[in-house]
Amino acid sequence: MNLRKRTSPVLREELVSTTLSCGLPCYAIPKRGFAKKVGIFATRYGSIDLTFTPDGQGMLETPPGIAHFLEHQLFKKAGGEDILMEFGKYGASSNAFTDYCTTAYYFTASGSFEKNLELLTGFVSAPYFEAENVAKEKLIIEQELRMYEDSPDHRLYKNLMGVLYTIHPVRIDIGGEVSDIQKIDRDLLEKCYRMFYNPSNMVLVVAGDLDPEAAFAVAEKTLSVDSFRAQGPIQRHWPTEPAGVKDRVVRAEMAVSRPRVLVGFKDLEPAGTKSLEREIQSSVVLDQLFGRSSEFYTRHYESGLIDDSFSFSYNSEDAFGFSLIGAETDEPEKLAEEILLELHKAKKGKLKQKDLERSKRKRLGKFIRSFDTPDGAAFLIMGCAQRNVDLFQVPQVISKLSAGALERRLREHFDEQNYAVSILSPKKA
Amino acid sequence: MNLRKRTSPVLREELVSTTLSCGLPCYAIPKRGFAKKVGIFATRYGSIDLTFTPDGQGMLETPPGIAHFLEHQLFKKAGGEDILMEFGKYGASSNAFTDYCTTAYYFTASGSFEKNLELLTGFVSAPYFEAENVAKEKLIIEQELRMYEDSPDHRLYKNLMGVLYTIHPVRIDIGGEVSDIQKIDRDLLEKCYRMFYNPSNMVLVVAGDLDPEAAFAVAEKTLSVDSFRAQGPIQRHWPTEPAGVKDRVVRAEMAVSRPRVLVGFKDLEPAGTKSLEREIQSSVVLDQLFGRSSEFYTRHYESGLIDDSFSFSYNSEDAFGFSLIGAETDEPEKLAEEILLELHKAKKGKLKQKDLERSKRKRLGKFIRSFDTPDGAAFLIMGCAQRNVDLFQVPQVISKLSAGALERRLREHFDEQNYAVSILSPKKA
Repeated sequence: MNLRKRTSPVLREELVSTTLSCGLPCYAIPKRGFAKKVGIFATRYGSIDLTFTPDGQGMLETPPGIAHFLEHQLFKKAGGEDILMEFGKYGASSNAFTDYCTTAYYFTASGSFEKNLELLTGFVSAPYFEAENVAKEKLIIEQELRMYEDSPDHRLYKNLMGVLYTIHPVRIDIGGEVSDIQKIDRDLLEKCYRMFYNPSNMVLVVAGDLDPEAAFAVAEKTLSVDSFRAQGPIQRHWPTEPAGVKDRVVRAEMAVSRPRVLVGFKDLEPAGTKSLEREIQSSVVLDQLFGRSSEFYTRHYESGLIDDSFSFSYNSEDAFGFSLIGAETDEPEKLAEEILLELHKAKKGKLKQKDLERSKRKRLGKFIRSFDTPDGAAFLIMGCAQRNVDLFQVPQVISKLSAGALERRLREHFDEQNYAVSILSPKKA
Repeated sequence: MNLRKRTSPVLREELVSTTLSCGLPCYAIPKRGFAKKVGIFATRYGSIDLTFTPDGQGMLETPPGIAHFLEHQLFKKAGGEDILMEFGKYGASSNAFTDYCTTAYYFTASGSFEKNLELLTGFVSAPYFEAENVAKEKLIIEQELRMYEDSPDHRLYKNLMGVLYTIHPVRIDIGGEVSDIQKIDRDLLEKCYRMFYNPSNMVLVVAGDLDPEAAFAVAEKTLSVDSFRAQGPIQRHWPTEPAGVKDRVVRAEMAVSRPRVLVGFKDLEPAGTKSLEREIQSSVVLDQLFGRSSEFYTRHYESGLIDDSFSFSYNSEDAFGFSLIGAETDEPEKLAEEILLELHKAKKGKLKQKDLERSKRKRLGKFIRSFDTPDGAAFLIMGCAQRNVDLFQVPQVISKLSAGALERRLREHFDEQNYAVSILSPKKA
């Protein structure tokens, strides 16, 4: 087995990688002295992958919710038993998540690492699609989707995405709607599984006090099956999101005791290979304008317009990028106005040099601290691999941040044409 | 079935309660329009219940970790299968936790509510203690305890409790040490189970869009078994914690990229029936001195001594109470000093009337918002029932807060004799 080893003086960590004979890229971070070990097996298949052209075939359009449905389905063994049980036998916890671009399966364990890794790679690469299982899982997923509807934050967010975007699939819930789930059957699941669950579209990451070569050998053994082979590239088709928004404001009522508001700004261009730069620049701009030490935060916290629930984030993938800023507040309209006003003012002025240096240190510190635990390191590496970002480049990208680049990003991203506001109010008794 | 119904004009909620024929108190909060339903079955048995006198018997001393071990054990069916599977069949999620004074089992589900409630009440009231199961679970718990040791925050906290308290069992980890677990066997588990898992020491809470009477009827049916009967009172013995601390400062090194510090203050007197007042007073004092809008927070955030990781809490039960204040920081000693200095200054001065009114509103708002979701409401009711606190009294206790009472609490609790400091530093390479 051909091992590649790299070390980072900034991180004081070693990253070991290899490619299995089936074509699967594998990464290991050996962290001495930790009891917890982690394994993650992930595929670049998420909720926005609805339309694609498999190698040498025609374009395929699928209903929303399949990536998430597959995540549920893969945990089922023949006969309907759950794989979680198997991990429990070896003292491990296993779970999974689906987001816009990724489905990831993982376990954490202190003992029996190789046995657990064998289970992880085994169940993800050898699914059971029994018609009866699929029908049962459909009911469970429908219930899960209905439960999300109870969450005020989920409703606020979902409503926002529905008006911020006009046609991009990021506007659709990751799990799909109940009506979408109805359209999913065993054949469709199998078809999408074959497309996206293959070594050329996946990555395996392990971290903890372990021997990388022994871990890779376990994966080599369990994944040397005829059904798990590298495929040609998948072409994904995302519609070009038009400038402007579907609707400027969306309002809803719910049984909450206090209103909440969420303001969103979308990027129109996909980031492509610049997704790391874009993400870091956008997060730093947001932190300077709305962070705990910003003039905005101090002023409105003092006046009572915002409280600890105030938060903001930039959400980025190659195919999309958007900012969210919001809070619980007694005056949702006023808070939305103040946020827009602050951005308007900022675009006319200059960012402070002092803030820039602080932001860089803060950002670098956050990155380095991700490596404090085996799971933190493993999920970061998975994220980088999914987006073709070189982990060791991150400190450089941060150190290169300039005031000019941040100001360009500020003006480009917080475009007054491309924002929408979602407001949730208490239901009148 | 004798139903008691109470409504709160402040909360706009109805609380329905009954006592089953076995003696179990049951509470229901019907919340219309929510998809999520919740059931919680809890016992007043936690990690600090180590020494007790069962009704009419001699005093019993047990090793730490049994409450948490029972939590694990109860999820096992005959043959070693896990009860979680059963809930999965009905589209529900089930979980449990053990803390200092409580073990709670719960599920959330959107459909099949009565079936899930039957499962919950069934498995908690009819455990299997097979010797082979117990031996297997011991290995799993040992691994779990070792994994906790990886967590810097857990280590920081555990070290602090070990020096803050001299003899009170709150100084011991909730899960116990590996050496404690070795002493636990099937007989001991069964003995403690019989003591603490009976209707006079437990509570059942359900919340969601449901019919309280139908829910109570399910519990009545599943719990009408001879083995589940009300017992006489359990006398718990906690040693009287002496004034002063075991050690003033504890230091450790770990593979973290940045130091962290935690300062703790302990109460010496048990709160008894005043635990609600004490908790609210202490939290409000902490918020005024160290909250986001405090002079302390603003000053040290600006200087870079603290960042968003700064946090504080008051942790209260009838049998103990302690405050924690800490953060990740480059200068842990300096932050500890500044915290102590701030408390010293505050004890000499007066709290501001303006801050008092804001604190009251904030605290009441937080309480009311707990009822925004079925699970929020259910866990709050469980907590009140466990501590014999009347839920509907909470708004009154908040409105009665006076500057005088807060100042007395400040001087009493933040005693310069009864604090300790825990510091965690990066391991030297």
